Amino acid sequence: MRKIKVAIVGAAGYAGEELLRLLMRHPNCEISVITSRKYDGMTIGEIFPRFAESELTFSTPNVDKIIEECDVAFLALPHGLAAEYALPLKDGGVVVIDISADFRLRNLAQYKKYYKVDHPAPELLPDTVYGSPELYRDQIKTADLIACPGCYVTSVILAGTPLLREGLVSTQGIVASCMSGVTGAGRKVDLPFIFPEANESLRAYGVSGHRHLPEMEQELAVAAGIDDIKINFAPHLVPVNRGINSTIFFDANEGCTLEKIADAYEKAYADEPFVRVLKHGALSDTKHITMTNFCEIGFTYDDHTNKVIVTSCIDNLTKGASGQAVQNLNIRFGFDEKAGL
Amino acid sequence: MRKIKVAIVGAAGYAGEELLRLLMRHPNCEISVITSRKYDGMTIGEIFPRFAESELTFSTPNVDKIIEECDVAFLALPHGLAAEYALPLKDGGVVVIDISADFRLRNLAQYKKYYKVDHPAPELLPDTVYGSPELYRDQIKTADLIACPGCYVTSVILAGTPLLREGLVSTQGIVASCMSGVTGAGRKVDLPFIFPEANESLRAYGVSGHRHLPEMEQELAVAAGIDDIKINFAPHLVPVNRGINSTIFFDANEGCTLEKIADAYEKAYADEPFVRVLKHGALSDTKHITMTNFCEIGFTYDDHTNKVIVTSCIDNLTKGASGQAVQNLNIRFGFDEKAGL
Amino acid sequence: MRKIKVAIVGAAGYAGEELLRLLMRHPNCEISVITSRKYDGMTIGEIFPRFAESELTFSTPNVDKIIEECDVAFLALPHGLAAEYALPLKDGGVVVIDISADFRLRNLAQYKKYYKVDHPAPELLPDTVYGSPELYRDQIKTADLIACPGCYVTSVILAGTPLLREGLVSTQGIVASCMSGVTGAGRKVDLPFIFPEANESLRAYGVSGHRHLPEMEQELAVAAGIDDIKINFAPHLVPVNRGINSTIFFDANEGCTLEKIADAYEKAYADEPFVRVLKHGALSDTKHITMTNFCEIGFTYDDHTNKVIVTSCIDNLTKGASGQAVQNLNIRFGFDEKAGL
Amino acid sequence: MRKIKVAIVGAAGYAGEELLRLLMRHPNCEISVITSRKYDGMTIGEIFPRFAESELTFSTPNVDKIIEECDVAFLALPHGLAAEYALPLKDGGVVVIDISADFRLRNLAQYKKYYKVDHPAPELLPDTVYGSPELYRDQIKTADLIACPGCYVTSVILAGTPLLREGLVSTQGIVASCMSGVTGAGRKVDLPFIFPEANESLRAYGVSGHRHLPEMEQELAVAAGIDDIKINFAPHLVPVNRGINSTIFFDANEGCTLEKIADAYEKAYADEPFVRVLKHGALSDTKHITMTNFCEIGFTYDDHTNKVIVTSCIDNLTKGASGQAVQNLNIRFGFDEKAGL
Repeated sequence: MRKIKVAIVGAAGYAGEELLRLLMRHPNCEISVITSRKYDGMTIGEIFPRFAESELTFSTPNVDKIIEECDVAFLALPHGLAAEYALPLKDGGVVVIDISADFRLRNLAQYKKYYKVDHPAPELLPDTVYGSPELYRDQIKTADLIACPGCYVTSVILAGTPLLREGLVSTQGIVASCMSGVTGAGRKVDLPFIFPEANESLRAYGVSGHRHLPEMEQELAVAAGIDDIKINFAPHLVPVNRGINSTIFFDANEGCTLEKIADAYEKAYADEPFVRVLKHGALSDTKHITMTNFCEIGFTYDDHTNKVIVTSCIDNLTKGASGQAVQNLNIRFGFDEKAGL
Repeated sequence: MRKIKVAIVGAAGYAGEELLRLLMRHPNCEISVITSRKYDGMTIGEIFPRFAESELTFSTPNVDKIIEECDVAFLALPHGLAAEYALPLKDGGVVVIDISADFRLRNLAQYKKYYKVDHPAPELLPDTVYGSPELYRDQIKTADLIACPGCYVTSVILAGTPLLREGLVSTQGIVASCMSGVTGAGRKVDLPFIFPEANESLRAYGVSGHRHLPEMEQELAVAAGIDDIKINFAPHLVPVNRGINSTIFFDANEGCTLEKIADAYEKAYADEPFVRVLKHGALSDTKHITMTNFCEIGFTYDDHTNKVIVTSCIDNLTKGASGQAVQNLNIRFGFDEKAGL
Repeated sequence: MRKIKVAIVGAAGYAGEELLRLLMRHPNCEISVITSRKYDGMTIGEIFPRFAESELTFSTPNVDKIIEECDVAFLALPHGLAAEYALPLKDGGVVVIDISADFRLRNLAQYKKYYKVDHPAPELLPDTVYGSPELYRDQIKTADLIACPGCYVTSVILAGTPLLREGLVSTQGIVASCMSGVTGAGRKVDLPFIFPEANESLRAYGVSGHRHLPEMEQELAVAAGIDDIKINFAPHLVPVNRGINSTIFFDANEGCTLEKIADAYEKAYADEPFVRVLKHGALSDTKHITMTNFCEIGFTYDDHTNKVIVTSCIDNLTKGASGQAVQNLNIRFGFDEKAGL
Repeated sequence: MRKIKVAIVGAAGYAGEELLRLLMRHPNCEISVITSRKYDGMTIGEIFPRFAESELTFSTPNVDKIIEECDVAFLALPHGLAAEYALPLKDGGVVVIDISADFRLRNLAQYKKYYKVDHPAPELLPDTVYGSPELYRDQIKTADLIACPGCYVTSVILAGTPLLREGLVSTQGIVASCMSGVTGAGRKVDLPFIFPEANESLRAYGVSGHRHLPEMEQELAVAAGIDDIKINFAPHLVPVNRGINSTIFFDANEGCTLEKIADAYEKAYADEPFVRVLKHGALSDTKHITMTNFCEIGFTYDDHTNKVIVTSCIDNLTKGASGQAVQNLNIRFGFDEKAGL
């Protein structure tokens, strides 16, 4: 079988590095173009010595060249560049798998509210598929523009969707308290992220109005079959390299039992290759899933307060970004869904 | 002024080590007895090389000797040993400052439910003062048995008390999501706590029914002036040595404003030497307070969900254990409240 | 092609876990037996939740069963058990790849001196091949008992062999100063290795007489073509999970130049799949090689002192243990040398 | 007793922060001026929230103002600014305690070689005292310009001086292999120092020609009573916040015995308040001395190679910088040498 040709646009960050790690061992892909304005002309080994044996070289992004050479392009860019890349690439027949935030929100007003700019390419939204394989696998199979979910969002919606779908928990009063490793901030050279500042530090940030909030609410509302859901989302920065641990508190609806919770997860994920639901009472740990594409979910019911408490762990760079993107690629191109993962 | 003579019973754990660090530089104290069954006869420097210049030596605990020699005894023991130490020491005229859990809960049934044993010395409970200086300073001044709060508890009740006292938030639906460094587990040699297991790991534990839960509820109910409060408390283990960060979600009552929240904290803590309330919007960070006796509190109001969200940081070994114990000592003996801290 | 059947004896430690990780994705292997006395009857997922999808179950080691079912057995055991496992397995026709220390030293007196016991199966020594693929690949191809090198040893001998072989450096006065992550101590539940003790700690240990010393000397002497070499080896424990960084100081011989050093490495490793020699002046970093089977070597010449200084990094669990063991398996059975790695 | 008034010039880095921590509790000092061009006008709490209760405010450095107000100025600046600050301050009668590198080297050619600029104020060198209390206490008592040693240098010269003074070890072939925590790089916002790059990474740097090398050689030559000594110094960056661990290899001279080594250290340091020499065989650990001004030294003799191996630990920010600077202040002004430490 011919290998498909892949471009990685914005390959010099952590999501780019993780895409490189995964795609280099992918049996059906050949990495054809990797771009970085900053490192134009440098070999991959100069930026990521881990890949020194590769002969790939960074180049300044050139949309025409990608259209000419590639079947698929991963966009690992800051938000707001959709018009510049996603639009022409898709028009040129390249399947676009976007890891940025540009196409995650279906509501333009929400985009503007949270990202502070007008949406750069609203005409593409109708044809965009939200790249959560567990929720939209069928649509992903034929999508030409796939918007990969945010990292925190992935951990929260995989935890909450089965419960809301089955009506086991209330749509009111959901609280998601999440922790992320420092790669979640990107390969960002900024004072709060240098080692002596981040090490031995535990801190919340953005507890009111983080950009991942409307995205969580959008998908949880879909799960609940309602128009609107409002939740609390409190992210925390903690000193690990990789990993997100989300602890989510739901009010149990009447009739909710542990058995029904287990059934809801079973129904949703029994055949999923990358969701691991633990037995009741076992709690997830990022250590179990770092460097993998798994989401590990644990749940319990607290009769003291009538809450369902779910813990959900992913690797923010794998299931939370590049791994999920590769899973989407596999679905879209009909490869083994686990290929490269 | 004569220095008072101090015993540390159970000095070989992390709370004991922190007591030693603080009391060695305390201007009004002389450490007279340090006990450890395991290390009987060994010098302090053999167990804690950091203190190699000290000539203190561990001995097997001897209640009579402590009564004879000491004015005050810190108990840094597992729970359940109250009858063996607190009772005779108090009877013998020694002021007891207990860092264990034995006297924290005023309700014997709760003690039995959460600690799985009958209370070892219920007759002492009526005279016990709960050792939270910000809440019970006057009673501490004359107490002969002071029960120091649990570490998580300290961070949560200092955050919640002013809001509940002033009726700004609901007593229903409080969620406390907390993270602790690994010294919180004690100097415990157990697989989950060895470096390769705890490093690069984020995990919840005891999300339903942790022993600190009833203690939080007891004190939050006092603050609210009601008999009973039920909250959710979810602790997490994260890879730092020291520090607790608690993020607590409250439903705002009608009429609650940011100004009133700020006023409530000002009213409660304006004169407190060890509570730092940040300006609205600033979030606390354990890095700001490790190795100090401070509790650092940040707050915000989320109009999206009508929640008040408070972040509260302490050093689990200082304000969460030994530092608060020394603060209690200072209050009890009329020393400068900051002495040694 | 039929997959070979593999036993992992002593699979519950970190070397065992790493073997499982590598062999589960090995295209030519089927894991048939995994043993652990302690966890007999438990599934792999109960001990290593990361592998929860596997159906492997630990069993008490049974040599007859392994002989009956398996083509190859990896021994990840403490030293001293050779007579119990290696001997009967080899006699039974099973290829033995030993990760323990039992067959690394060719000199029985050295074994006794450093391991404090008589060698348990000296009759096997003559047929043992030292499992360093870069040094003994041809012998490994036909070996039935392969003794995998120690972790520190691997990093040091790969750095030193080309220089000594070519006579570029003196055999006198070699100093190896090495750092290792905490998994190097094994999955050992002991006070010095709990998180609060190992985190934020830098310490040397065993600077005179570590067990890896005679093994380094044995192989460096082979490289130099002399009977005996004496070096200094100082290991240090540092707070990372994985990785060894060795900095080795050699006295340059007359005529040694940077070009000759580069040539010596080129000659030795140009075709090696798992040795990366950096350009002069670049220094190796464990970050470049963790979770891979690479040894990354950097070198420089210090004209100030006439020393050649080499830095050599490996992942102690991969190239330093289980990865190298799998590389040996690949060589022995004629697989692609990179299979599973 | 009147408190002396102190200026900290360049107070916004880690050495400045540590000076603040120590001087705020110093019984004989009042911090009068803290400077930072970048943070001019900001309160100390805005930059270091740990000190939020202080009312100190950063100002742009103003030499005249410092001369007018202060008795002593600590300079925590990059090298090369001596002419701008040290010179006029000293002329103005302010005692200067310099933590920068400008006055550490007595040889101007060495300064130019290693720092790549002409010395900015060579006329001050003759009156400068090297601020190692253990080596130059008497001169420090009357010095008006004290050049505090580099961090690595402190750990190495305290380890080596007694051995060289007593002629127990050779002046040839000394190798110092050292590790430092990341605060050693300063509060520097640069890619190699962000958490995901520095965490789980072990790397050597500057193994040939680090700026601390000539300074070590200068002081070790003094100890040996010879003009010139050449050593190897290999620093490594490791993921801890604070701490330096140096392992130093010396060739033993004839007649060197463990007893004589112990005697040499005893002779040198028996009365030193901040040097802890461990019993033979015990190895130092940064954990024992972080946040203190101690240097902890362990030693052993390796008869296998006839080497004396010494391990020496300091906190790079305390004994390696600001703590030693305060110790010098105490000596210079006749305070208790431990005041504030």
